[in-house]
Amino acid sequence: MRFGCELRGDPDTRIERVATLGNASPGSIAFLANPRYRAQLADTRASAVVLSQAAAEECRTAMLVSQNPYATYARIAAILHPLSAAKPGIDPSAAVAADARVDPTAQIGVFAAIGPEVSIGARSVVGPHCVLGAKVVIADDVRLVARVTLGEGVRIGARSVLHPGAVIGADGFGFAPDGGRWVKVPQLGSVRIGPDVEVGANTTVDCGAIEDTVIEEGVKLDNQIQIGHNVRIGAHTVIAGCTGISGSTTIGSRCMIGGMVGIAGHIRIADDVVITACSAVSHSITRPGVYSGTLPVEAARLWRRLVAHFKRGVSVGARLRALERAVGVPSAQDEDHD
Amino acid sequence: MRFGCELRGDPDTRIERVATLGNASPGSIAFLANPRYRAQLADTRASAVVLSQAAAEECRTAMLVSQNPYATYARIAAILHPLSAAKPGIDPSAAVAADARVDPTAQIGVFAAIGPEVSIGARSVVGPHCVLGAKVVIADDVRLVARVTLGEGVRIGARSVLHPGAVIGADGFGFAPDGGRWVKVPQLGSVRIGPDVEVGANTTVDCGAIEDTVIEEGVKLDNQIQIGHNVRIGAHTVIAGCTGISGSTTIGSRCMIGGMVGIAGHIRIADDVVITACSAVSHSITRPGVYSGTLPVEAARLWRRLVAHFKRGVSVGARLRALERAVGVPSAQDEDHD
Amino acid sequence: MRFGCELRGDPDTRIERVATLGNASPGSIAFLANPRYRAQLADTRASAVVLSQAAAEECRTAMLVSQNPYATYARIAAILHPLSAAKPGIDPSAAVAADARVDPTAQIGVFAAIGPEVSIGARSVVGPHCVLGAKVVIADDVRLVARVTLGEGVRIGARSVLHPGAVIGADGFGFAPDGGRWVKVPQLGSVRIGPDVEVGANTTVDCGAIEDTVIEEGVKLDNQIQIGHNVRIGAHTVIAGCTGISGSTTIGSRCMIGGMVGIAGHIRIADDVVITACSAVSHSITRPGVYSGTLPVEAARLWRRLVAHFKRGVSVGARLRALERAVGVPSAQDEDHD
Repeated sequence: MRFGCELRGDPDTRIERVATLGNASPGSIAFLANPRYRAQLADTRASAVVLSQAAAEECRTAMLVSQNPYATYARIAAILHPLSAAKPGIDPSAAVAADARVDPTAQIGVFAAIGPEVSIGARSVVGPHCVLGAKVVIADDVRLVARVTLGEGVRIGARSVLHPGAVIGADGFGFAPDGGRWVKVPQLGSVRIGPDVEVGANTTVDCGAIEDTVIEEGVKLDNQIQIGHNVRIGAHTVIAGCTGISGSTTIGSRCMIGGMVGIAGHIRIADDVVITACSAVSHSITRPGVYSGTLPVEAARLWRRLVAHFKRGVSVGARLRALERAVGVPSAQDEDHD
Repeated sequence: MRFGCELRGDPDTRIERVATLGNASPGSIAFLANPRYRAQLADTRASAVVLSQAAAEECRTAMLVSQNPYATYARIAAILHPLSAAKPGIDPSAAVAADARVDPTAQIGVFAAIGPEVSIGARSVVGPHCVLGAKVVIADDVRLVARVTLGEGVRIGARSVLHPGAVIGADGFGFAPDGGRWVKVPQLGSVRIGPDVEVGANTTVDCGAIEDTVIEEGVKLDNQIQIGHNVRIGAHTVIAGCTGISGSTTIGSRCMIGGMVGIAGHIRIADDVVITACSAVSHSITRPGVYSGTLPVEAARLWRRLVAHFKRGVSVGARLRALERAVGVPSAQDEDHD
Repeated sequence: MRFGCELRGDPDTRIERVATLGNASPGSIAFLANPRYRAQLADTRASAVVLSQAAAEECRTAMLVSQNPYATYARIAAILHPLSAAKPGIDPSAAVAADARVDPTAQIGVFAAIGPEVSIGARSVVGPHCVLGAKVVIADDVRLVARVTLGEGVRIGARSVLHPGAVIGADGFGFAPDGGRWVKVPQLGSVRIGPDVEVGANTTVDCGAIEDTVIEEGVKLDNQIQIGHNVRIGAHTVIAGCTGISGSTTIGSRCMIGGMVGIAGHIRIADDVVITACSAVSHSITRPGVYSGTLPVEAARLWRRLVAHFKRGVSVGARLRALERAVGVPSAQDEDHD
């Protein structure tokens, strides 16, 4: 089978579209990857389901048994529901600099503004309202969906997708304190984005101060992420929405960073690090592994007591020491000295 | 009275505009809703004040005594300072697909880009620089203030207001891991936004992966909120700025969610839940009530000691147990086993 | 010397551009301000380095010894790499209201939309795709880089710089609860931004409800910051990315606020306050100083134990009291009553 999985059931089952297990109708294919939804297998009206060997015996429809049902589903969905290809040509409303080089197979949308010395590769789509500064370089098969802004000299690798509102290459946040005022530090670098990168809606990636900010191959950035100047993000790292990374920090390859994580500047995160959502990272992480700083909500009444207790925390050490002295119990090795 | 409140003072008082209590001048009407500002009542130069019965005796001006002064003020302000109505017609600079249906009473602003098969209702305003993908449906009396981006098939209910930079219907963040790389999962759903919804500046609502992301009637979203694919937000819920909601989570009706809250994916928040600002929600909340996870700042010196104590926390349990054993005091029922 | 620093080494050293210490080549000038990078001094190929007296003896190249190397570097970089000046004139694609006053030395970019009664000062640049509502006032030497949206009546002071995606003057988030629904409170004020302000990409500053939201002189705002209605930010305060400030809060002058900080509404932060990244500020801060609420990540396994301990925290007080009673040790003065 072309998807490297095993078909069980009628090989002539006709599939026309994808659906969720819960709302499928005949002619559709669904998938089961998250065990949370396993109970829906019994009642689904899908004509076929992509699932793992472990779930196969509960399935009564035709099925594609895969070692990676989610990836198999993704490939099938892309075939059943293909993206429309670039429609070659430049919309007459677009403003394209005379010396920009636009591949004849590329599509330039309405009101796109394309600066001098820009280069746009084959089959790439520059959607409506995109703004490309001077010397931007777009490789082949790139999709700037709409209203993407690229600053001077930004480079986008092949097959990358940038969503509306993304701003790549705005000035980094560099100001030198000087007698109670702030002197702007010129931001002279640009941004290099590798191939197969995805950049979410309203995500911002600042240009470097001197050298470039770098997003390596295969990185996936969700919406509303902020990436400071001279950050480097290693290949195939994924970052969820609303996360912010301060300047000059290096993130390793194959990391998974949750949403709303704050990462300090000038630090290093090793390869293969996982950080849970809503965490604060203030120091370098040198070893692969899962890291967390998430304090989940409680009922507010209990939470207030917990916070009060936390804020009295430093007195607990003193009370323990007093008790230990009185009782003659030796203090723990990591006794606190607060 | 048309606002359902009681007028005290000269019924011929002439009111031309609104003002704050502190900076009012004659001819203006002010309001008192937040008790924080009650002291300003004594000195206000407003010609009239909207306030509650409880505050009425401190007021020396004409007054409108209301059970809900803030709502009463809101209605009066809307009459004194009405929004300009839609100016019917399509700006000649706009790019409107030939088969888009634009109600003759709707207004289409400069450089708006309106895709094929779009439908725009009566008296709706599509402001400057808006981008509407194919098959978008805009009901009556909608206001897309400016530079709003709507992806394919997005539906906006009557009287909803979307502010600049909002991106509705960008791809959800769906990638399947596969041998160290990420396979994009096609995002095939869209977004349905109900009537009377407000969407703040630079807020993003992703399209669903298969089915639609849904924002129900009367929901109010502040600026820079991120809503993942297949989220559902119940009617009349309000969410403050910078909050992020991960994919496939369902939020109940009439919730109030503070700013910068992070909410995990695939969970459920019940109706009538209040979550305080800067909280992290990692599990479902099944009962109405107030929930919190906010740790307020302290002076940094104290904070460092608190954090140090917190991070030694696991040793406290051991020390308590040692003491309890030594003293012969029984451990508490919820003894920890760390 | 024009930069108020001391030159050591060959005064005829020719400098053409800036570089980092690590990647400099002859003809470039580098700087050392962050001690983290001091080891790079030994091997740099820069022709000159800007540094402090303390680092001077380790430097083998020509050097500029400065009391403030970062600010000195910033000024040199601005001279070596000057911004391009405004190119006077209105792009023919721009839509400019008939009664807008545009200084003849100002530059109006492609697809800019400029509303009625707007005023634009000398040498100011309104970049591509900017949208300026009615009555906007832009002082001299302002740069709206691209795709900046300014609501009705917004005023921008001289020499301020606004980056792409910034939205200034969208409606504040004001809704009055009324019988299970929300009544919109008209947002009638605007935004005043002082001179020498920087506003980052996709940052939003809401208009005031009645009076104006105010950003004073010299304030520097990073990307993706959210500023609610009627906030006032004092002169020369800097705020890092992703921070959110709720409505009606006043921030003092010369504050330094880290990234991803959440600040509640209706509070006051004194002058000269520093707040570390990822902190939550729920109450007023009345004294200068450093404040923190950051809980840094730990390995997830340890973190889970810490959180479990934190959440059992309220039982620790009871156990301590029981022990203190049993042993006859008096409880600490700040005994908890949880």
